[in-house]
Amino acid sequence: MIIIGIHTFFTSLNDLERIIRCPGRFKFEEHNVAAHSWKVSQYAMFFGTLEEMNGAKINWKSLYEKTINHDFAEVFIGDIKTPVKHASPELKEMLAHVEEKMMEKFIREEIPPDYQQIFFERMKEGKDSTIEGRLLEFADKLDQFYEAFAELKRGNTDKEFVYMYQSALAKLIEIPLKNSVQYFRNEILNDAMAEETQIDLTHLTQEILQNK
Amino acid sequence: MIIIGIHTFFTSLNDLERIIRCPGRFKFEEHNVAAHSWKVSQYAMFFGTLEEMNGAKINWKSLYEKTINHDFAEVFIGDIKTPVKHASPELKEMLAHVEEKMMEKFIREEIPPDYQQIFFERMKEGKDSTIEGRLLEFADKLDQFYEAFAELKRGNTDKEFVYMYQSALAKLIEIPLKNSVQYFRNEILNDAMAEETQIDLTHLTQEILQNK
Amino acid sequence: MIIIGIHTFFTSLNDLERIIRCPGRFKFEEHNVAAHSWKVSQYAMFFGTLEEMNGAKINWKSLYEKTINHDFAEVFIGDIKTPVKHASPELKEMLAHVEEKMMEKFIREEIPPDYQQIFFERMKEGKDSTIEGRLLEFADKLDQFYEAFAELKRGNTDKEFVYMYQSALAKLIEIPLKNSVQYFRNEILNDAMAEETQIDLTHLTQEILQNK
Amino acid sequence: MIIIGIHTFFTSLNDLERIIRCPGRFKFEEHNVAAHSWKVSQYAMFFGTLEEMNGAKINWKSLYEKTINHDFAEVFIGDIKTPVKHASPELKEMLAHVEEKMMEKFIREEIPPDYQQIFFERMKEGKDSTIEGRLLEFADKLDQFYEAFAELKRGNTDKEFVYMYQSALAKLIEIPLKNSVQYFRNEILNDAMAEETQIDLTHLTQEILQNK
Amino acid sequence: MIIIGIHTFFTSLNDLERIIRCPGRFKFEEHNVAAHSWKVSQYAMFFGTLEEMNGAKINWKSLYEKTINHDFAEVFIGDIKTPVKHASPELKEMLAHVEEKMMEKFIREEIPPDYQQIFFERMKEGKDSTIEGRLLEFADKLDQFYEAFAELKRGNTDKEFVYMYQSALAKLIEIPLKNSVQYFRNEILNDAMAEETQIDLTHLTQEILQNK
Amino acid sequence: MIIIGIHTFFTSLNDLERIIRCPGRFKFEEHNVAAHSWKVSQYAMFFGTLEEMNGAKINWKSLYEKTINHDFAEVFIGDIKTPVKHASPELKEMLAHVEEKMMEKFIREEIPPDYQQIFFERMKEGKDSTIEGRLLEFADKLDQFYEAFAELKRGNTDKEFVYMYQSALAKLIEIPLKNSVQYFRNEILNDAMAEETQIDLTHLTQEILQNK
Repeated sequence: MIIIGIHTFFTSLNDLERIIRCPGRFKFEEHNVAAHSWKVSQYAMFFGTLEEMNGAKINWKSLYEKTINHDFAEVFIGDIKTPVKHASPELKEMLAHVEEKMMEKFIREEIPPDYQQIFFERMKEGKDSTIEGRLLEFADKLDQFYEAFAELKRGNTDKEFVYMYQSALAKLIEIPLKNSVQYFRNEILNDAMAEETQIDLTHLTQEILQNK
Repeated sequence: MIIIGIHTFFTSLNDLERIIRCPGRFKFEEHNVAAHSWKVSQYAMFFGTLEEMNGAKINWKSLYEKTINHDFAEVFIGDIKTPVKHASPELKEMLAHVEEKMMEKFIREEIPPDYQQIFFERMKEGKDSTIEGRLLEFADKLDQFYEAFAELKRGNTDKEFVYMYQSALAKLIEIPLKNSVQYFRNEILNDAMAEETQIDLTHLTQEILQNK
Repeated sequence: MIIIGIHTFFTSLNDLERIIRCPGRFKFEEHNVAAHSWKVSQYAMFFGTLEEMNGAKINWKSLYEKTINHDFAEVFIGDIKTPVKHASPELKEMLAHVEEKMMEKFIREEIPPDYQQIFFERMKEGKDSTIEGRLLEFADKLDQFYEAFAELKRGNTDKEFVYMYQSALAKLIEIPLKNSVQYFRNEILNDAMAEETQIDLTHLTQEILQNK
Repeated sequence: MIIIGIHTFFTSLNDLERIIRCPGRFKFEEHNVAAHSWKVSQYAMFFGTLEEMNGAKINWKSLYEKTINHDFAEVFIGDIKTPVKHASPELKEMLAHVEEKMMEKFIREEIPPDYQQIFFERMKEGKDSTIEGRLLEFADKLDQFYEAFAELKRGNTDKEFVYMYQSALAKLIEIPLKNSVQYFRNEILNDAMAEETQIDLTHLTQEILQNK
Repeated sequence: MIIIGIHTFFTSLNDLERIIRCPGRFKFEEHNVAAHSWKVSQYAMFFGTLEEMNGAKINWKSLYEKTINHDFAEVFIGDIKTPVKHASPELKEMLAHVEEKMMEKFIREEIPPDYQQIFFERMKEGKDSTIEGRLLEFADKLDQFYEAFAELKRGNTDKEFVYMYQSALAKLIEIPLKNSVQYFRNEILNDAMAEETQIDLTHLTQEILQNK
Repeated sequence: MIIIGIHTFFTSLNDLERIIRCPGRFKFEEHNVAAHSWKVSQYAMFFGTLEEMNGAKINWKSLYEKTINHDFAEVFIGDIKTPVKHASPELKEMLAHVEEKMMEKFIREEIPPDYQQIFFERMKEGKDSTIEGRLLEFADKLDQFYEAFAELKRGNTDKEFVYMYQSALAKLIEIPLKNSVQYFRNEILNDAMAEETQIDLTHLTQEILQNK
């Protein structure tokens, strides 16, 4: 028996509660993709407001849809290990292509016809050059920053988290969102550095900041 | 040393990944409040679209903020067991009051002054009579429906989940959102009833539908 | 079908194995309320003996029943987050009242009539001014001390556990049980301070001892 | 550095929260020895009261100490798999002997001299022919009954739990505690059989009752 | 600081204990790739013996190395979700190519020069047409069969496991190992079908057997 | 109904995924016996090759069978706590005897007659004085070394892991496999000591090396 309809889409959301981020690494605390998506939407809410207070025009509907949908495609492929993503540009492109094809197939088969066009629009890659796309990129990297921060704070000595921490930090401060980046550097990093941590995060942070 | 600022708010989001819904009951699969909030925002995205296609005017910014923020207050009190919530109207009111006071204190102490008014607005109870408030109520109940559905489907014989299932169902079909309710009854329930389940859900469903 | 009888009480004991202490905080090891109650009864066995050897008269039946029953009410309300308990005296009183009412309702509905009076007696708040009540208070705080000690020892940098540790310590040494307090300060604290720990517990301990 | 004193005993209690009962079997829910000991003390509280109401004289101090201490020795040897215990009478005796020796060594090395005699008394095998010894045996078997009951109710098809269930049941109804056994058969079993279960427990129960 | 040497290879084995098979699906019991590899080597030991007793010549060194190494590459890419693997022949080939490249890079960088040639030999795809390659294929599919069997037996109603079960079964009986297939059909399937299961496995099994 | 045949053996392999090593100790990461056996076979593959390159003659079939089978008997008795194993020579012998008897019984009842002799051979104690027996001993101790190393590296302050670490190290360097021991001391220990760790492993390592 074939089940077609939005019911399949809704039950697939549950699958994302079982896709664990950073698969295969030792970590003191696991995070799933559903909870990650929610945290990203929360960060976006704050930085969208901050940019708006500094004069930007935010399309909120687009911003929130970008954040809550940005990792939905992992329901098809899982959270592929980071080194794979960076193994080669061809593979990265190929994987993006497959993801797109599987999403397309899913929408054609499971989403009621009247809604297909809207779903195609919503589920496509959100990290474009619009301010909403940049806010998504910023919020997504910020969650990577916080996930690595928490592991290092608790004493996880796996080098992968040092790499994740520094790589998220380096990307965050380069995203073209002047006010958000400034706020992050002046307020958030200060508060974060004031915390007691098992691993010396001030040093790891300075290494990145001084190179920029 | 006192840490004040948005950093505290951001790290508190992580706490909601550790607040488990339906504490103390046996379940085959646990759900945390962060992932729940994300699923609620996804359901709202669909039903908001459905209502809009049927002529309603949706304030999308408000709808998404209601859904992603609606359980943030659990960071202060946890997911209080259902029977407590229904023990007495006075207690329910008192708990709501305390929740409000703790939220207020949190905002005053942790959120930068320029953002406090916006946070007060966003974090207040969202289930009002606006169409966005009703969509939040609908989406929140739908997730309760799906959580109970999944447990019963897999053979959880705990009576609590029968109660949760039927109670969510009874409330869902009474929410004043004609098109969403109709779609739920005609499409989603049909697909759900077509699934193979360990516990007879068709019977439990009919008991509720026939009383309305 | 309504199930009435001691069977319901017995199966509800299992629920306390799923109520996790300190909900929502990151911890390296979780503890449930059932296991906590057992540890509290073990501590009480030792300190009751110590007080008896120093001339006190212990009602052992009462002491053990106080310890094994002291958190049974959490089966109704869960382990409410600490900040809520201290939010306001009215709320604390209200919650205690609700707990009592729910216990009363449970006993009237589930316990066979011949046993109801005995259950009312056993399940009421045990931390009174009798020596057994003080031993319960002492043993309960000692378990809080040990839970926080273990987290800090393993390097949990969450400030909550520093607070839990110091607050348990401060209360322990003020409980009117001269011999037990003296034994705790002279023997147990000495042995505990001699352990190798990730976080400097000697300093955190001295801060409290020197203020008393 | 050698740590001697009651602190070591107290921290060893935490170890019993990590000894899982029925190691190596698939189960929907795990139980640790600490929580098990607490449930056994709760059952004993009820059946001790029942026997007392029927004219027996209960030494409550002894009864509670037997129940909270009865599995402490597992801290040394773990929960040895059932088939091993029954492999041969010599092994069973040998293991009991080793357990005793390790307990003795532990008491001599960790417990302060003044308390050693009391600990020897309390930690020795509690399942003797006194009424308290029989109540311990009854309560311990009842927890085995409930653990197996819960697995079978939720549809665990592992034959081991059928064996555990029937074996606990067969032993329970043979323990020389007329009133407790009668209450178990007439009240508890009736309520238990009235529950909806995935596996047919009425049949498994009748098989045992009819043979007695 | 760069760590080069077999130490890195040895610690990477631990990573495979954290790669969970069948990521993102609900299951009653999880399996990691390390334990899976061990079970596959056990099955191969038996069926290798069976084929040898029926006259085949087995290169045991090769057989065991194929089984213990066959999923080592998942340390680089994780257990990619099944639908991705089958999305397109190009992607499958591309992924296999990337896996190979990453393995090559790993061997060049981490394995001491004297051992590199041996590692290249051992880590290459093992499912070739030799009898050892066919035994690996057979043993790998048998573990998929058993994983799905256990979920269905316990009542997992997720359609994915029905598909996994039937697909493993269909492939198993087509592998060109006459004696092993015959033994599987006549002995193992008979015993498996005799088990009590929550989901009707005899029917699901017949559907496949009758099509061949 | 009695199930006899290799199916029972195959399903018992799954049990070893639930036998946790080092039961009852706090650890940041658990390891099961199935995954351990796989890692041991991987270490043996490397050191067998190393010894072969240095002129030794390796019976690879025997070596791999020793490693994958060496802990199968734990399916009967579980992972008995270390202190028990060392409590007395008589007990150790008695336990070994019981293990052997249970294995014998299992083979007679579950393994098809034609295969019984082969299983007796394979399942007997593998740590003999042959080079394969010594390689098994070496690989088994190396996994104990790595398990303790990982806990200490992440900051586990439980003394048990210091003991495990030093005891594994002391035994490793005494095993009569000159080339393997030399490689371990010169290469692996060097790389391991170069890692950043929460607990000072260089010191703990030197304590052992200097005594030999």
